[in-house]
Amino acid sequence: MAPSTPQVITCKAAVAWGAGEPLVMEEVEVSPPQPMEIRIKVVSTSLCRSDLSAWESHAIFPRIFGHEGSGIVESVGLGVTEFKEGDHVLTVFIGECMTCRQCTSGKSNICQVLGLERRGLMHSDQKTRFSVKGKPVYHYCAVSSFSEYTVIHSGCAVKVSPHAPLEKICLLSCGVAAGLGAVWNVADVSKGSTVVIFGLGTVGLSVAQAAKLRGASRIIGVDNNPQKCENAKAFGVTEVLDPNSCEEPIAQVIKRITDGGADFSFECVGDTDMITTALQSCCDGWGLTVTLGVPKAKPAMSAHYGLLLMGRTLKGSLFGGWKPKSDLPSLVEKYVNKVTTTVP
Amino acid sequence: MAPSTPQVITCKAAVAWGAGEPLVMEEVEVSPPQPMEIRIKVVSTSLCRSDLSAWESHAIFPRIFGHEGSGIVESVGLGVTEFKEGDHVLTVFIGECMTCRQCTSGKSNICQVLGLERRGLMHSDQKTRFSVKGKPVYHYCAVSSFSEYTVIHSGCAVKVSPHAPLEKICLLSCGVAAGLGAVWNVADVSKGSTVVIFGLGTVGLSVAQAAKLRGASRIIGVDNNPQKCENAKAFGVTEVLDPNSCEEPIAQVIKRITDGGADFSFECVGDTDMITTALQSCCDGWGLTVTLGVPKAKPAMSAHYGLLLMGRTLKGSLFGGWKPKSDLPSLVEKYVNKVTTTVP
Repeated sequence: MAPSTPQVITCKAAVAWGAGEPLVMEEVEVSPPQPMEIRIKVVSTSLCRSDLSAWESHAIFPRIFGHEGSGIVESVGLGVTEFKEGDHVLTVFIGECMTCRQCTSGKSNICQVLGLERRGLMHSDQKTRFSVKGKPVYHYCAVSSFSEYTVIHSGCAVKVSPHAPLEKICLLSCGVAAGLGAVWNVADVSKGSTVVIFGLGTVGLSVAQAAKLRGASRIIGVDNNPQKCENAKAFGVTEVLDPNSCEEPIAQVIKRITDGGADFSFECVGDTDMITTALQSCCDGWGLTVTLGVPKAKPAMSAHYGLLLMGRTLKGSLFGGWKPKSDLPSLVEKYVNKVTTTVP
Repeated sequence: MAPSTPQVITCKAAVAWGAGEPLVMEEVEVSPPQPMEIRIKVVSTSLCRSDLSAWESHAIFPRIFGHEGSGIVESVGLGVTEFKEGDHVLTVFIGECMTCRQCTSGKSNICQVLGLERRGLMHSDQKTRFSVKGKPVYHYCAVSSFSEYTVIHSGCAVKVSPHAPLEKICLLSCGVAAGLGAVWNVADVSKGSTVVIFGLGTVGLSVAQAAKLRGASRIIGVDNNPQKCENAKAFGVTEVLDPNSCEEPIAQVIKRITDGGADFSFECVGDTDMITTALQSCCDGWGLTVTLGVPKAKPAMSAHYGLLLMGRTLKGSLFGGWKPKSDLPSLVEKYVNKVTTTVP
């Protein structure tokens, strides 16, 4: 028997009606998936700082935020053979088309077809799949997981084992994967090295965890929230620094205690000014600064050229360099097999 | 018979008396070399843009510029065993102490003891070795090769074969080595890749030559001097672009003709604004921008964070990553054996 044609679903979603305005739980209509798309029942979603940043500052409304989620396929659009009803999936805000110059390069996850979607629309037809009483509602990163059901491009979904706990692994669809990959794929942190992490949120803690697993000798966490500093120790951070409690500039403190600067520094705050500090905290010669954050304000970073001339490298990392379809399943497996840990 | 104690030498040198003022050929007194120093008779010196930049803008005068030179050892200071009278040497503006964290790392040439000297003094005792009628004259980068004789730290000299032509190889003590090393050591340009070079002076042309020797498939040179563009073809540049003749921004032109951006870009102008353009001219995912120049003005570079987030890397290169004592002799040998070429 042929599967029945998907119909519009009405469900609850958290809708943002304007910049900074409280999200409202609304009845939304979710269209059927279009060709090469799938509609999923969202099981879990997490909240990323970049959802908040876009909610505070972007101009596209009404909108459904959320870009890291897990769910179960409810229906599939024309042409989809990779997924079927009931499959467990992670959503991803940067897809893998498997055919573009980047996807086929073997050295980049910056898909040129299903990359970051910034206009609140679906990649395929530049339209939305949500409405409230007939009025279109925009997407966020073509994921919009703050809804009971959502529609995503099949290239922006990753099939995962039905045994993996969806409520936990949704963190691998952005924050945790971003941190782990920045250390393993992008920086390639080596055993015995010194690491500094600016910002001890989900991403920063994942950087710490990954650095610990690589055998870093010192993992210095920097945050001005004492509670975050305390929690960070469970993730492998060996020392914490609160810039507010330091009498010298934080980069100077780090250079002093690391004999000239760390081997690696990670900017996980999403603050372009912090990128300079992260560069200053790295050593001459081979210091590598990885910037992971999406700035809340001031999109331009700046730095004295001398920091670079003295042999530093500045590298950006989006989603930890992971190609979602190719790499995420093994990352999920690592989690299931307790290579990475859960902290209560 | 013990060697005679070196005496003060009086010779000609080009002295800069003030910022932007014409250099004056003066009779200068050159002190004997102090412990671990050597005094050399300069055979050749070349003129680097950073000499000009410092002459235009620095505050330290009177001064003898010049930081790339070749010469013959005239006398040696106490404790020097590496050199003897008559040895042929290259001078280097960044030395190799062989003992600091960087020198012993095997992965950096940013010596922490004999690094860039910016105060016009000698590394060892923070004094000068030149005077005019008893009045001290400052150094530049602890080399000061615009003089018939100069004193340098023995860690800032590299012994070379007496068969290598000193008037040619002096270019290896800065400009040519900087360009070759940026491609081979720092960027590690791979066969078949696409390279863009901003600025077709000595450094840019050396980048082109090195990229050609690595088998780059396209070497795009950018300069607004038509004569430089023309000359560049002899060094391996396959296409030239003059930004003044382009109707679109140059980065846009490059992205268009390279299907999304080059694999590598090199900023050889010494213009921090050009660093952004160089980043924009690189492709998402793996685009690597190497910045080699010492800016004439505006020491801060800036760039939109999104350029980094999309997978670009920005890396600084000083003296092409070469450790002078360890690496320069083999580079000189490459030149003598015609691996690199001379263009009439």
